[in-house]
Amino acid sequence: MLARYLPILMWLKTYNRHTLTSDAIAAVIVTIMLIPQSLAYALLAGLPAQVGLYASILPLVAYAVFGTSRTLAVGPVAVVSLMTAAAASNIAQQGSAEYLAAAVMLAALSGAMLIVMGVLRLGLLANFLSHPVISGFITASGLIIAASQLKHLLGIKADGDTLVDILVQLFGQLQHIHWPTVLIGVSATLFLFWSRTSLKPLLLRRGLSGRHADILAKASPVLAVALTTLVTWGGGLDKLGVKIVGDIVVGLPSLQLPAFTSSMWEKLLVSALLISIVGFVESVSVAQTLAAKRRQRISPDQELIGLGASNIASAVSGGFPVTGGFSRSVVNYDAGAETPAAGAFTAIGIALAAVLLTPLIYFLPKATLAATIIVAVLSLVDFGALQRTWKYSKSDFAAMMATILLTLVEGVEVGIMAGVSLSILLYLYRTSRPHSAIVGRVPGTEHFRNVCRHQVETDPAIITLRVDESLYFANARYLEDLIYDLVASQPKVRHLVLMCPAVNLIDASALESLEAINHRLRDSGVSFHLSEVKGPVMDMLRRSHFLEELSGQVFLSQFDAWKALHPAPSAARTLHSVV
Amino acid sequence: MLARYLPILMWLKTYNRHTLTSDAIAAVIVTIMLIPQSLAYALLAGLPAQVGLYASILPLVAYAVFGTSRTLAVGPVAVVSLMTAAAASNIAQQGSAEYLAAAVMLAALSGAMLIVMGVLRLGLLANFLSHPVISGFITASGLIIAASQLKHLLGIKADGDTLVDILVQLFGQLQHIHWPTVLIGVSATLFLFWSRTSLKPLLLRRGLSGRHADILAKASPVLAVALTTLVTWGGGLDKLGVKIVGDIVVGLPSLQLPAFTSSMWEKLLVSALLISIVGFVESVSVAQTLAAKRRQRISPDQELIGLGASNIASAVSGGFPVTGGFSRSVVNYDAGAETPAAGAFTAIGIALAAVLLTPLIYFLPKATLAATIIVAVLSLVDFGALQRTWKYSKSDFAAMMATILLTLVEGVEVGIMAGVSLSILLYLYRTSRPHSAIVGRVPGTEHFRNVCRHQVETDPAIITLRVDESLYFANARYLEDLIYDLVASQPKVRHLVLMCPAVNLIDASALESLEAINHRLRDSGVSFHLSEVKGPVMDMLRRSHFLEELSGQVFLSQFDAWKALHPAPSAARTLHSVV
Repeated sequence: MLARYLPILMWLKTYNRHTLTSDAIAAVIVTIMLIPQSLAYALLAGLPAQVGLYASILPLVAYAVFGTSRTLAVGPVAVVSLMTAAAASNIAQQGSAEYLAAAVMLAALSGAMLIVMGVLRLGLLANFLSHPVISGFITASGLIIAASQLKHLLGIKADGDTLVDILVQLFGQLQHIHWPTVLIGVSATLFLFWSRTSLKPLLLRRGLSGRHADILAKASPVLAVALTTLVTWGGGLDKLGVKIVGDIVVGLPSLQLPAFTSSMWEKLLVSALLISIVGFVESVSVAQTLAAKRRQRISPDQELIGLGASNIASAVSGGFPVTGGFSRSVVNYDAGAETPAAGAFTAIGIALAAVLLTPLIYFLPKATLAATIIVAVLSLVDFGALQRTWKYSKSDFAAMMATILLTLVEGVEVGIMAGVSLSILLYLYRTSRPHSAIVGRVPGTEHFRNVCRHQVETDPAIITLRVDESLYFANARYLEDLIYDLVASQPKVRHLVLMCPAVNLIDASALESLEAINHRLRDSGVSFHLSEVKGPVMDMLRRSHFLEELSGQVFLSQFDAWKALHPAPSAARTLHSVV
Repeated sequence: MLARYLPILMWLKTYNRHTLTSDAIAAVIVTIMLIPQSLAYALLAGLPAQVGLYASILPLVAYAVFGTSRTLAVGPVAVVSLMTAAAASNIAQQGSAEYLAAAVMLAALSGAMLIVMGVLRLGLLANFLSHPVISGFITASGLIIAASQLKHLLGIKADGDTLVDILVQLFGQLQHIHWPTVLIGVSATLFLFWSRTSLKPLLLRRGLSGRHADILAKASPVLAVALTTLVTWGGGLDKLGVKIVGDIVVGLPSLQLPAFTSSMWEKLLVSALLISIVGFVESVSVAQTLAAKRRQRISPDQELIGLGASNIASAVSGGFPVTGGFSRSVVNYDAGAETPAAGAFTAIGIALAAVLLTPLIYFLPKATLAATIIVAVLSLVDFGALQRTWKYSKSDFAAMMATILLTLVEGVEVGIMAGVSLSILLYLYRTSRPHSAIVGRVPGTEHFRNVCRHQVETDPAIITLRVDESLYFANARYLEDLIYDLVASQPKVRHLVLMCPAVNLIDASALESLEAINHRLRDSGVSFHLSEVKGPVMDMLRRSHFLEELSGQVFLSQFDAWKALHPAPSAARTLHSVV
């Protein structure tokens, strides 16, 4: 029981010098990579740079204690930072103390929600984010983030939560472009794109091992940060108007509970829920992918608690919402991390950086941070998925496209909510008009098949309808209409058999419809029968009055129904001659 | 085409003196019944009495032109009036001009929405109101309405949208009870309850035909109105403080477009949508029940247009939202109405009443109107449904109970939205953990059955999993977990067969999961096969790369899979001896 909620107890007892070495090496590499990333995502969230570092210390320790993935690296990530900015800017102006308070409170609320969901084992909530919706949301978020960082690259001012807002403002400011900033920003961007595509092959050709080349290539943002900081300091570019990170509060965050003003947390509830779910989905899919590579397993419900604890830890140390990030987790994995202790060691590294390193990045240009963000998020943009989804399923494509367009035009919260709602509605719509077939007997067998596709035996006095879907509120009335139309079109019919091999559920609305069908058919002199009803469905029907009132019978198999209702050919002839 | 949108063209060409007579008689009876009802529902909606009459003139003419039911009687109804009051009181104080404007605008918005839904053939939207949710909503609304009318019965003041609000206020005012009002109100209530249960049997014993007794019993509110008006006038009870209807604007409504102030209509959008859907569901179920009795059919999509036109007609003539009502439609049907012309004739009757009758009801006590409302709505309260639903299905019961409680505690809009959301979520939850079974071969046959329930043949190298649900985003990850756990628990397994006879759909998220399963199983040395995939599902899979990447095969039948993967006993023995 304790081990369920404290996975650390599982791996700590087998911890040894070998795992310590592996974890420590991975921690050094991840720390180096995480410093510019943490600063950049704080910038993206509209927060002071040190907040990014704060969000990369205690949350990592909390995850090491409560998380189940051996290699997941927790901290600020792009999409969640964007969502934080969108939510906090509904509360206050960027740069104000209230804005920072809103970001901290988002972490606290989201942490509390994640823990509650974990204790209630509600990990399945993440299932409502269908793949096309996540994919579309991440593509659109990537575009918004990239656009939002263009202002830092161009040295102009532009705000806004949606792509349209941002682009309109950028175009209005184009005459104020600051060329020294552009020089630094564009060089950094080009360097980062180059190192992403060409540095690794180059290093491989120079004789480095694949793993080392990979890690070095991923550390190139650190090089960009160092170089542009040196150039700015040496050239005095800040005096020319290049925006720099400047004074950062040196030292470790002070621990305190977030100030809960009730008006604010009510306004942030929905945003915190969305951040929680999006962060959880992103984190779990990364964790699952990496766990699968080493034949490990993660527990989604305990992951909720791990991420929840991380966010609470972030909130009490003045940070903003965090989750498991893709690129840093991959680096952690590739660098050989073996246990969550690697995360705790990374936290120590970041804490040292917060104490010692911040004076060194005084001259770091914001344009460089913007460049690292742009290069990172553009790799998330996947237009190919649009084409693949279009080819596979038009309704999945509709959900994806709606998510992208609404995220771009109306912002992240509207976008994701619309995507989730639309994918649920489209699914309900599909099941509200289930596939069905009139079936007849394949001559000489006990099989019954669709009359439109097979040469089968039928009887004008019997209609057998097979419905290939559970019967529930969304299709109950459709079924009624279908049956009334069928009976109206075949005046000779005396028996209607509903064949239910694919009916896994009959809910109270469908039961009501079946009762209505039964009454109405009886009034028209038609008996209503069921066949091949599954055991659990039959158990439910027995708890109602339906079976007592049913004008016909329930047959175990469709063949039984046919034998009972279809008179033998000789008998039929006799009947005709009598009539 | 024209006839689709103008059903009047269908019945008008066969109109003759016989149908005219039937319709006219029905119209007289419905008119008499509708006058007190219209006044009462205006009172319930918090509107001046004449507005109830206005809403019973033009809307009936519009429905006669555009509606498809022969016998539906349109006008103000209890639940929709309650919803109108709840929505309008968010905008302004009862009695103000703005409150009336909000009610008129609700009719206009709801009319426009219904027409748009009708043109887009979105009648299926009504399917999302499951039976337990409607039933629970109507029960709770009935209780709220009855409670809200108690103040008129007791002659005290009390407002509020929720049962709790109303009851708290009533208790606070109990010392101000006005006994003359109570005398009139309670007598009227008792009389109406008595006539509902005992008047018809009495009339039957006196020799009246069943139909006449029925109609007379239903006209008893008219008698109550007449008697209490006379008593109040004769006894000068209004001077004792009995609240009366008082001065009503005499005459017909003036036609005008509602004043559209944008801030107001934005606030009313959600309410108008809820009113539209609830009104439509109520109306269609009444229309369908009555149509079925005479083997007629209605067209739900054209009904949307008919009700939309009625609401627009109500808005331009200063009325409030209307829909097809249960009791008046039954009276119309029983009184022998044969075509929608009966509705148009009723409109003429109400118009005459608006011109001639209003001075006569100056002394009509509001307590009498409250009594007619209370007696009408308490018949809608159905606690028996709670018990039946509990017995049949716990999750339907949960949706019903949530609807009732939230409607009572939080009001009609929150109640219905919560009910709809919960029933959708519960359905998704059920399908997110589909029933599945490991199957084996029934010896000597081609049948494969659940290993837990039948004596079947299996092979430790083959797992065959049958999933009894479509595969889509809500259960895609569940399927992954299920398969990974299965494979992890059986180390000897070489083949996994997913048997899909009940899979009607594989959406893009499930496809993604199948691809992940395929890759991961291949990494573990297990081939992944499918069997019995339905035709339309196979067509979709062919549009992706899944089938090319599949490590195993797709078998037409599970028996084919078994023949191909399970070596013949002799061959198996050979293999064993080789190993």
